[in-house]
Amino acid sequence: MSTGSPLLADLIEALRCLPGVGAKTAQRMAFHMLERDRPGARRLAERLAVAVEKVGNCRRCRGFSEQEVCSFCANASRDKHLLCVVETPVDQLAIEQATGYRGHYFVLLGRLSPLDGLGPKELGLDLLAARLAEGEIEEMIVATNPTVEGEATAHMLSQLARAADVRASRLAHGVPLGGELEFIDRGTLAHAFGGRQSLL
Amino acid sequence: MSTGSPLLADLIEALRCLPGVGAKTAQRMAFHMLERDRPGARRLAERLAVAVEKVGNCRRCRGFSEQEVCSFCANASRDKHLLCVVETPVDQLAIEQATGYRGHYFVLLGRLSPLDGLGPKELGLDLLAARLAEGEIEEMIVATNPTVEGEATAHMLSQLARAADVRASRLAHGVPLGGELEFIDRGTLAHAFGGRQSLL
Ligand SMILES: [Zn+2]
Ligand SMILES: [Zn+2]
Repeated sequence: MSTGSPLLADLIEALRCLPGVGAKTAQRMAFHMLERDRPGARRLAERLAVAVEKVGNCRRCRGFSEQEVCSFCANASRDKHLLCVVETPVDQLAIEQATGYRGHYFVLLGRLSPLDGLGPKELGLDLLAARLAEGEIEEMIVATNPTVEGEATAHMLSQLARAADVRASRLAHGVPLGGELEFIDRGTLAHAFGGRQSLL
Repeated sequence: MSTGSPLLADLIEALRCLPGVGAKTAQRMAFHMLERDRPGARRLAERLAVAVEKVGNCRRCRGFSEQEVCSFCANASRDKHLLCVVETPVDQLAIEQATGYRGHYFVLLGRLSPLDGLGPKELGLDLLAARLAEGEIEEMIVATNPTVEGEATAHMLSQLARAADVRASRLAHGVPLGGELEFIDRGTLAHAFGGRQSLL
């Protein structure tokens, strides 16, 4: 241990759970907080503890929520005729921030991947089918990633839409193949979203 | 707010107290922890809360410590004849990690800066003088930053050493002017430390 404080060493070690944070960055973060921003550090500790404890998944869209129903699903001013299906909550955030989309979402929390034990059940497709059967959705926008598994997922989703007699569309080409939505710049994503095309 | 969870939005905002973390990175960190590493996030929240609460300053060297006396000062196997004086705990860590130094430290928690109200008293120079007067220190290694204020601080420290009849040395040239120890690569820092020179 290279510090005079075991608790500080513990903190540095724990900071490495953050993505992209190595030993050196974790040290800088720990020292910065203790030297210069204890109120900020205390607030972070509290909010992190609360979020880990309370944030679960919305029972309607499966996105993150501390309520039974998230604030997207509960928002009556959003367009109830549009449903955008994404793989993860990060993709949901990326679309919300990059585009003017103000419809509803459905979060698969994964993509079809039989080898990982991810099938229709794990992706909540029964919940999605029930949602489509409610009859309010007029267009389902499929925003899975343009990877092999994402494409397979999109195919299954389009079948689901057809069975429910709901129009399905996909993000326009423009999303680079093999890319992940999360890392695409806003302009490209907004363009692809605006130019989404009908599925079959 | 671009997420369906107000608590998640709060967490993203709080993560921005970390140095170098902007809006986009804070989002990635929050989603990563909630999606993939809740145990790590819980541990981080706990350790951060404990560190903010318990870690204070060693009453002997002023470095970080949750005990009255830090684990450097309490370590009888370290060389009690050497005292390295640094501006901040981060500089202390940098020297400990980059060099083979295994003597003791004294942390100024700043540098002479009258305009900021930082004078000899704030830097704990009375404590340092008392330490030198104990008679065990044979060499005081001045490792302040090579900035104008760091140089002024070094000058005052060398006077303190002379008054106590203790040999004073400085890190060798090799530390770039205007640089901060914290950001210097280990090799350069180790070299400068090994080649430290007598003051006056
Ligand atoms: Zn929801
Ligand atoms: Zn100490």
